[in-house]
Amino acid sequence: MLMLPSRIAYHVPVARWEPNTRERLVRAAVDLFADQGYDATTVSEIAERAGGLSKMTFFRHFPDKREVLFAGQDKMGQLLAGVIAAAPGSATPLQAVAAGLDALAALHTNDQREFAVRLRAAIVGNAELRERAASKRFALTEAVTAALEKRGVPDLTAGLAAELGIRAYYRAYEQWADSPGEQTLTDFARHSLSELRAASATLD
Amino acid sequence: MLMLPSRIAYHVPVARWEPNTRERLVRAAVDLFADQGYDATTVSEIAERAGGLSKMTFFRHFPDKREVLFAGQDKMGQLLAGVIAAAPGSATPLQAVAAGLDALAALHTNDQREFAVRLRAAIVGNAELRERAASKRFALTEAVTAALEKRGVPDLTAGLAAELGIRAYYRAYEQWADSPGEQTLTDFARHSLSELRAASATLD
Repeated sequence: MLMLPSRIAYHVPVARWEPNTRERLVRAAVDLFADQGYDATTVSEIAERAGGLSKMTFFRHFPDKREVLFAGQDKMGQLLAGVIAAAPGSATPLQAVAAGLDALAALHTNDQREFAVRLRAAIVGNAELRERAASKRFALTEAVTAALEKRGVPDLTAGLAAELGIRAYYRAYEQWADSPGEQTLTDFARHSLSELRAASATLD
Repeated sequence: MLMLPSRIAYHVPVARWEPNTRERLVRAAVDLFADQGYDATTVSEIAERAGGLSKMTFFRHFPDKREVLFAGQDKMGQLLAGVIAAAPGSATPLQAVAAGLDALAALHTNDQREFAVRLRAAIVGNAELRERAASKRFALTEAVTAALEKRGVPDLTAGLAAELGIRAYYRAYEQWADSPGEQTLTDFARHSLSELRAASATLD
């Protein structure tokens, strides 16, 4: 990540230097969806709440108000695929998947837990968003499956390892969002993957 | 399934006795989506193609044109849940799931394969429908998970057994739709579940 000394910000025109525009739009959307509901919230309101931005600025970043909440999907899929591709040739499918989960989890710090809870509340409360969330989860599983197949993993095994990994990540994310302690998302994700492996081995 | 001698149909007013209205609407929709695309097709056209029906008749059966393709979701979920609940107390989670898949597969006869191929083509060609399909798959997995948990299966195991079962069913459905031979969907589903169990046991 590119880090600039914050002082530099004062010397650059705000309209051109908007490093957090996307993030501000996401946070504004989640706040508004939580406060007044998804259906009642307009793109203009989101842009306004994100610091007096225009609708046009919003549409430079997102195709519609729904996608604000799922903008990370492609990036997550690419990150998973990249890390799985880069895993040592000797890594087993689940070891490669574990490396991918570590990379995803490292994107989150514990001060983001409150936001994770609000995001979840916004999605759970709306059928259209729940549907979109299921589609994201499926797409991530497919991305991991494809990355494993590129490593030569047979398709059945690749699909199952991908499913186990994404299932572990989602389970860990829920637990992490609700946790008050010092454990990181990485801790939860590793524990969850290990639990799921054990459960999978005894499946009957 | 209630079977009436077909001759009886001639003695009952058509407007009140429309045993196949839903099915005719589904087939008309799939035909039109395949011919002219999902976005270009209106509810009126679907109703008309289904034998000169009205929009109002359509809306008595489906909330919108998208749901025509996914109308079976609730029924499938309930069938799976019912069969899993009714499995002997001694059945393992995967045995209960296998009974559920048998029940689902038994709904399909081999003369429906051509329709399955057309339905798939309609869904694959449209992002909104693919998303809805992912959501259906997720909902079915959740239904099986919940049914297993009601049997006292621990949540991790229930989720994995459900995933294995739904994954096996979808895989089998694809293979069956493309197959020219005598094998039934039941044959494919049993084989697929057995393959996935084996792959799962060697996952590493």
